Amino acid sequence: MSVYDRLEEMGVVLPEMTPPAASFAPWVRTGDLLYLSGHIARRDGGPWVGQLGATLSTSQGREAARRAAIDLLGTVHAATGDLGVVKQVVKVMVLVNSAPGFIEQHLVANGASEILEGAFGSAHARSAFGASQIPFGSCVEIEAILQVA
Amino acid sequence: MSVYDRLEEMGVVLPEMTPPAASFAPWVRTGDLLYLSGHIARRDGGPWVGQLGATLSTSQGREAARRAAIDLLGTVHAATGDLGVVKQVVKVMVLVNSAPGFIEQHLVANGASEILEGAFGSAHARSAFGASQIPFGSCVEIEAILQVA
Amino acid sequence: MSVYDRLEEMGVVLPEMTPPAASFAPWVRTGDLLYLSGHIARRDGGPWVGQLGATLSTSQGREAARRAAIDLLGTVHAATGDLGVVKQVVKVMVLVNSAPGFIEQHLVANGASEILEGAFGSAHARSAFGASQIPFGSCVEIEAILQVA
Repeated sequence: MSVYDRLEEMGVVLPEMTPPAASFAPWVRTGDLLYLSGHIARRDGGPWVGQLGATLSTSQGREAARRAAIDLLGTVHAATGDLGVVKQVVKVMVLVNSAPGFIEQHLVANGASEILEGAFGSAHARSAFGASQIPFGSCVEIEAILQVA
Repeated sequence: MSVYDRLEEMGVVLPEMTPPAASFAPWVRTGDLLYLSGHIARRDGGPWVGQLGATLSTSQGREAARRAAIDLLGTVHAATGDLGVVKQVVKVMVLVNSAPGFIEQHLVANGASEILEGAFGSAHARSAFGASQIPFGSCVEIEAILQVA
Repeated sequence: MSVYDRLEEMGVVLPEMTPPAASFAPWVRTGDLLYLSGHIARRDGGPWVGQLGATLSTSQGREAARRAAIDLLGTVHAATGDLGVVKQVVKVMVLVNSAPGFIEQHLVANGASEILEGAFGSAHARSAFGASQIPFGSCVEIEAILQVA
């Protein structure tokens, strides 16, 4: 099964790449590493605004992280032309817009990790933590480093 | 002196690797780089819960960062089988669970940096900053990139 | 035009490298990658203290990010001896000391990205987000990964 078959099986439709909202590139490649810029969670064509522990539940945050990871895969597809060249997801950083008492950033981040592991078949290194805010008030932001052929 | 001798001299006992609490790998290797996932500070077998500038002092935070770095070394030992293959610690990111007025993240982070520099004999690049929260309410989280033979 | 010519055209004077304020190295090189430690924004010879959304405006934050990026270039010059060996800026992380309601981290970060893109002629991958605090109470902190010859 190809990566695209696995994504289809998970019900994932790859989006067009969203152009960066500021002065940076959506990705940069150096050697066999592909660095993906921070991708914010989106809904209804705009930022998914909210804060975990305040206006969003853990399960909503998890869905937001899932969507940000899917957008990130759309960028990887645009960068490589073929997700089949991805050798592994090396490292993922998941920022969770967190009110002071919210401590389930790891559960929110799982929404992203499960898509990525499902697509490529191996687990990645990861950090997840609470950000005091995220651009546009988005609830989740995800960056990643991938190894490509 | 081996890395293990230096650790013993610093009174460090390497722990067994703690399995990740969510959907990710404790480390991923790509080329000669080893990416370590975020390791939260632990005490008494569980997360070391607290916030700098609220419930914990700078010296407590420093001790928490030291323990998280030791756990991280336990993971490096599990990943490599021999800490002697580590060429250098390239980069460390230290997240400090910080109340609004706490501005000594660099002093907290030194608790981790001193163990790592003591073990491997050279200084690493580093960022340290305040997170609004950390998974499980832990007070410190540390991730790292190492170069291995 | 050399990198130095482009910097001069932008009115940038490279500073001497600021020694780290704690137990870490200003940079580490591995292979052709140069990892730069977090550089905090400075003003009048000390940390530029303040928080976006509280005591500083977006345009002030943008200027702070610009200055931190210039300091970072001073470190790259010290690390390499010649900015001409820089192949590309791979990845930049911009931490913005953010009050709860501040959501323009991307605009603050542009102050850094524009200097870096102006100097080297290509865009970089980037993440920008809100930190609950930054060492010394500084308003901005920037780390980066560069590819060098």
